[in-house]
Amino acid sequence: MRVAVIGAGALGLYYGALLQKSGVEIHFLMRRDYDAVVRSGLQVYSTNGDFHLPKVNAWRTSEEIGKADLVIVALKTFANDCYRELISPLLKSDSLILSLQNGLGNEEALADVFGAERIIGGVAFLCSNRGEPGVVHHLGAGRIILGEFVRRNNDQLERVSEMFHKSGVDCRTTDDLKRARWEKLVWNIPFNGLSALLQQSVDRVLAVPATRKLVREIMLEVIIAGNAQGLNSDIPEKFVDSMIDFTDNMGVYKPSMQIDREEGRELEIGAIFRTPLQYGAEKGAAMPRVEMLATLLEQTQTR
Amino acid sequence: MRVAVIGAGALGLYYGALLQKSGVEIHFLMRRDYDAVVRSGLQVYSTNGDFHLPKVNAWRTSEEIGKADLVIVALKTFANDCYRELISPLLKSDSLILSLQNGLGNEEALADVFGAERIIGGVAFLCSNRGEPGVVHHLGAGRIILGEFVRRNNDQLERVSEMFHKSGVDCRTTDDLKRARWEKLVWNIPFNGLSALLQQSVDRVLAVPATRKLVREIMLEVIIAGNAQGLNSDIPEKFVDSMIDFTDNMGVYKPSMQIDREEGRELEIGAIFRTPLQYGAEKGAAMPRVEMLATLLEQTQTR
Repeated sequence: MRVAVIGAGALGLYYGALLQKSGVEIHFLMRRDYDAVVRSGLQVYSTNGDFHLPKVNAWRTSEEIGKADLVIVALKTFANDCYRELISPLLKSDSLILSLQNGLGNEEALADVFGAERIIGGVAFLCSNRGEPGVVHHLGAGRIILGEFVRRNNDQLERVSEMFHKSGVDCRTTDDLKRARWEKLVWNIPFNGLSALLQQSVDRVLAVPATRKLVREIMLEVIIAGNAQGLNSDIPEKFVDSMIDFTDNMGVYKPSMQIDREEGRELEIGAIFRTPLQYGAEKGAAMPRVEMLATLLEQTQTR
Repeated sequence: MRVAVIGAGALGLYYGALLQKSGVEIHFLMRRDYDAVVRSGLQVYSTNGDFHLPKVNAWRTSEEIGKADLVIVALKTFANDCYRELISPLLKSDSLILSLQNGLGNEEALADVFGAERIIGGVAFLCSNRGEPGVVHHLGAGRIILGEFVRRNNDQLERVSEMFHKSGVDCRTTDDLKRARWEKLVWNIPFNGLSALLQQSVDRVLAVPATRKLVREIMLEVIIAGNAQGLNSDIPEKFVDSMIDFTDNMGVYKPSMQIDREEGRELEIGAIFRTPLQYGAEKGAAMPRVEMLATLLEQTQTR
């Protein structure tokens, strides 16, 4: 399979490097890391073992990459208005497009431009950071859940899943992508939101009883809004407990949005907050605390 | 009238200085400013005209002050557990106690210790800051609304009001102290809360439409909880519009809680947030956004 990775942040670099190491032909669209990678290749520091790729197919434009069987979209969601420009040159009639982006609305936006049947969504649970140009740090986890945007009776989803699996990624498939996306939001909305707003890691957020209670209330708002979307099966309320237990075990962890704010990068408030709020409102699900958190985060971005 | 001012922050120093200038015998309980004031008196820089009091009755303990006809309580509310120690030595049988403190619960706490009939509450609208020791800055406003904690058929309230009026303070009386306190909370809760949390002045908070909407929603929660307390007349919903117009005209203004946070001082979250939340809950008034704001503010105070 000939694979193009669009968006060479930590996530795109990490999964792309694993796939290349396992023998897949990978082409990266790069900006910041281009010169370093052409000169010295790509270095991965990983809790699963460090490795170095001396030669990497790095390109400055999608036209140079040419046609791909699979396009992995790893852009920050606020760059989604570049979909057409960056992805169109890569597509032939049977190319698949996999979004490994955060939040909601990415598959819908891709389907609008390129047609629904070729779109796959992936929910990635990955702790990673970029280092200096040409270096990516994998800090833990890495599981991916893949689902088709519209169900098809062929093996396209299994072939992509198998490819990740062979590269060492814990990759599973689901027939309810929507549920997987909302389940991830149950974690992402409170912890990315509160940690970014307060500039406190998740252990500090959970250390105060009133704030733990707020986290639970926010999670319940997300679950109710998610279940209002018509999932194959409802997310149970006790999912809140398992997410809090899970986070208690993470220790001193900074969610990506906290790091983005620390480093002065744009926050993915649209995909992680505003689109879920809109989907909730369309089904009559009120999310007052989620909306307040979104508003406060946006306010931190004003000058 | 012999008057003791307990709590020599900006508010206590400012009103005490005006009263002394108008001829009232004032005694200040001081900590930080004691040495400077004994040495060089008290300097007031005011938008109504600067003045200097070369000789000020400054004391380190209430015992040294002796008995007073009126005790003005200007402590930060988190020091309220010092009421008995600081006020008891000042009281004779007919002494009055006036709390000019923020938020809710102060008159109740004073009444518990010293009896309800001698307690007067004052809602102060004052923009002021302490400068270096011995200096207070009055930046604007200064109006006081006075009300008895329990109504009495004598002229005690009018006498106190007249004293402030003669010193140049715009002082009025109300027969509904509770309503005056809740009206001030309609402003204090959103603007002290959001400005302290975001570290942004009120004009920045109001510049973003989603945040203006949040301010309105918070104000409405406070109005509903206030009206549930059994006021003589309800606070109308359109009070929200007048408070927002009023604040739009303040320009670049930092509420006191924002300054307290900037300067690393304790925040008055109990009197301004937690007590109103408790009073609201007792009457079945839900205040989800106010509670979330209180929780976020408390979280900023953790280490």
